[in-house]
Amino acid sequence: MLDIKIERTTTPKEKPADETKLGFGHIFTDHMFVMNYDAGQGWHDARIVPYGDLSLSPAAMCLHYGQEIFEGLKAYRTADGSVQLFRPQENFKRMNNSAERMVIPKINEEDMLYALKTLVKMEQDWVPHTEGASLYIRPFIIAVDPYVGVKPADHYLFIIILSPSGAYYSTGLNPVKIYVENKYVRAVRGGTGFAKTAANYAISLAGQEEAHEQDYEQVLWLDGVERKYVEEVGSMNIFFVIDGEVVTPQLLGSVLPGITRKSAIEICKKKGYKVSERKISIEEIAEAYDNGKLDEVFGTGTAAVISPVGHLKWGDKVMEINNNKIGPVSQMLYDTMTGIQWGKIPDEFGWIVKID
Amino acid sequence: MLDIKIERTTTPKEKPADETKLGFGHIFTDHMFVMNYDAGQGWHDARIVPYGDLSLSPAAMCLHYGQEIFEGLKAYRTADGSVQLFRPQENFKRMNNSAERMVIPKINEEDMLYALKTLVKMEQDWVPHTEGASLYIRPFIIAVDPYVGVKPADHYLFIIILSPSGAYYSTGLNPVKIYVENKYVRAVRGGTGFAKTAANYAISLAGQEEAHEQDYEQVLWLDGVERKYVEEVGSMNIFFVIDGEVVTPQLLGSVLPGITRKSAIEICKKKGYKVSERKISIEEIAEAYDNGKLDEVFGTGTAAVISPVGHLKWGDKVMEINNNKIGPVSQMLYDTMTGIQWGKIPDEFGWIVKID
Repeated sequence: MLDIKIERTTTPKEKPADETKLGFGHIFTDHMFVMNYDAGQGWHDARIVPYGDLSLSPAAMCLHYGQEIFEGLKAYRTADGSVQLFRPQENFKRMNNSAERMVIPKINEEDMLYALKTLVKMEQDWVPHTEGASLYIRPFIIAVDPYVGVKPADHYLFIIILSPSGAYYSTGLNPVKIYVENKYVRAVRGGTGFAKTAANYAISLAGQEEAHEQDYEQVLWLDGVERKYVEEVGSMNIFFVIDGEVVTPQLLGSVLPGITRKSAIEICKKKGYKVSERKISIEEIAEAYDNGKLDEVFGTGTAAVISPVGHLKWGDKVMEINNNKIGPVSQMLYDTMTGIQWGKIPDEFGWIVKID
Repeated sequence: MLDIKIERTTTPKEKPADETKLGFGHIFTDHMFVMNYDAGQGWHDARIVPYGDLSLSPAAMCLHYGQEIFEGLKAYRTADGSVQLFRPQENFKRMNNSAERMVIPKINEEDMLYALKTLVKMEQDWVPHTEGASLYIRPFIIAVDPYVGVKPADHYLFIIILSPSGAYYSTGLNPVKIYVENKYVRAVRGGTGFAKTAANYAISLAGQEEAHEQDYEQVLWLDGVERKYVEEVGSMNIFFVIDGEVVTPQLLGSVLPGITRKSAIEICKKKGYKVSERKISIEEIAEAYDNGKLDEVFGTGTAAVISPVGHLKWGDKVMEINNNKIGPVSQMLYDTMTGIQWGKIPDEFGWIVKID
């Protein structure tokens, strides 16, 4: 078992008094997990320490060349007061895939799951009790060599921080308006689109800003080669229900392999839906819409779980999906996924990891 | 004029004793320039402070989403002992272009040139006296909001650090071996290839590693759409001399607009060469080679100035360029550029900015 040195804070913070006002990603708990990597020595010095600022050289490579990866998952409080995680093994597995693409040394997935469980157990009082609220978990790795040359680093920090966060939909599960991006590209095959790495998010900001200026909440990214096939929406995966069939872009290297995406596919299949992972052109979507066969559109992601799309704009064409209401597949997925996450329905998939 | 508050170090470091062993980007001077940006307030609190670690929240957005840009230039010591910069206005202009793409607030270019001159003047004893050595200058901007949501930040730091660095070619101007990358892609139109931002460098690391494994020094990137047209080499721009004509890829959004590239074009034109900025396919290069018309290949960049390419590998085809020797155009550009930079020949272009 990983040996984790624990240093407890002597100045614990007040827990948020009003859990309906948590927001997302602004508040952090009392402790964080930290581990160092040094070339020749590997990962070492696993420790839980008081949450606090990092001291980084202004030349630290992560501040210049973006050699950094992260993950995002949540801890949920169930009705009996216990705390549980949703498929955390998948996050550490994906983190190692991201690490490989970004030339970052791999972590031991079992050790990191143990570290995460140890940290969440220590911070369990920070897991919100309010319906829909949860403890957002952010593991990340940054390159810290104090060296301004472009090369893979020799020194890294692996850190896990925790943030109690509110229900994503404070006003209920409202459909979002999305906009087909035709100017900017998020990722291309041969790039880093499949990795959960800083670059993909940095690249996406300008498109996001443009969507906001047009009063849309997110952009739908098209592929970088033909600018024809849909890839993902904002920082979520995208699904379409076309004539009763659940369709989502296949993973060809430029799309993030979302864990909520994967879970949605598995749930749909178990419920008897036909599910296809394949290339989907934006023309096909528009045609299905014109023929009255575009039943539902929704995004999947850790933060929102399921995000129904009410309006989809492509050039001058604005498609209103399912009368701007959440559809049956979206609702079923939301209910099943959140039901399992918060322990309200049985976990027939074996996805839950209990913090004991 | 920008008001810069100055706090001098009380513990100045020893200057490097042996300037032939400086290396690149490892040693930093006694002071750095720092300025803050806060939404609603703009850039403020310009200051020169002792060089030292930054205190950053583990949630700082730059550590997760790569909203960060940088520049690279040098200060040179001339024979009369004075210190000078090479086209620094171009760096701040490009920094603002990068800022726009990455949704980072723009800087005042004149103020930043003044800040840089003030800092370099203060640190002028750190500018090496050795032939070919110089003071590498790294201005950069990082997003520092302590918030783990994806959006453009509200808080930034602009920092300039300085690093005395050795001659890039410690053993003379040796041709490098480069390798046409066919698996990874650096950038695509609609992406951030033209911006000097972390993402492009993070994305390039895996290709660079692969080149090293094959005993090549750099990769030649092809375009992300057709995987056919040459873009740039490693982190330099690329030039070809084909049948006496100087050819370089045109700037279509996926290639960095190098200042050394721009200067090389201007010098070649002034010297009477025919210069074309256009699309160049790798097939065209191979064909020119087969016909004995590929006279020279070289990279341009701030660090190396001119980097002649001796071997170019594309699939199984290995092209030896100009008998693995530096060619006349490369040599002329190197001599002219370094001659102007170190004040050895007259600056007929008006590129030099003196530190007085």
